[in-house]
Amino acid sequence: MSTRPVAPALRLDHVAVAVASLKDALPAFERLAGRPAESPQRVEPQGVDICFVGRLELLAPFRAGSPVARFLERRGPGLHHIAYRTDDLTALMRRLADEGCEFTSAEPMTGAGGHRVAFVHPRSTGGVLVELVEK
Amino acid sequence: MSTRPVAPALRLDHVAVAVASLKDALPAFERLAGRPAESPQRVEPQGVDICFVGRLELLAPFRAGSPVARFLERRGPGLHHIAYRTDDLTALMRRLADEGCEFTSAEPMTGAGGHRVAFVHPRSTGGVLVELVEK
Repeated sequence: MSTRPVAPALRLDHVAVAVASLKDALPAFERLAGRPAESPQRVEPQGVDICFVGRLELLAPFRAGSPVARFLERRGPGLHHIAYRTDDLTALMRRLADEGCEFTSAEPMTGAGGHRVAFVHPRSTGGVLVELVEK
Repeated sequence: MSTRPVAPALRLDHVAVAVASLKDALPAFERLAGRPAESPQRVEPQGVDICFVGRLELLAPFRAGSPVARFLERRGPGLHHIAYRTDDLTALMRRLADEGCEFTSAEPMTGAGGHRVAFVHPRSTGGVLVELVEK
């Protein structure tokens, strides 16, 4: 008999910030966090170049019309999303969908580091874009 | 001779979300995070009621004209700030000011839980309000 709870508490994985240029934005966050940035990566499906400084993920669009490019046009640079970590994305999406949660796409996508990810639509959270990352 | 580095790496303490009402916003974040909220607290100097769900802090203004009330008027509900933890706020503020960082006020304030806090101005970070919390 499993003693695993139905809804295990999720851990915060990272916080993402949309910026126009990684090169221009990185020094301020490296100074602030007191640590160097990791190597940048391109996340082709989402049209962004990303770079981690600790648990902060900077996102810069490399393609016009991508979601992050549109975010920057509408709101300017700033906090973009938070991400929770899960060990079973499919089960988590099923539980949340059963509870009325909407996702930006029905199926998981490939995110940074090749992880499976999905995004909870901000209308299900009162305005916050929430990523779920399978790790 | 101390081996402590000049700029120790800071740890992310929490992420804050501005909402119009704690009562209305909490259920979605409790479902998502899979854990119950802590008890709400009033942070009088900043004009907000706050409530933690894991490492997410929900902020709702109780006073018109407070910074969070103005944020909601301008941008609507959503991600408001991130907070890094430090064990010496005065030394950290001095180091960051020397590096050209601006703060929303020159002196630390009292934040949630009675901790000493300060806020780095978004113009020093490319658009992100960053809280520094002494713990």
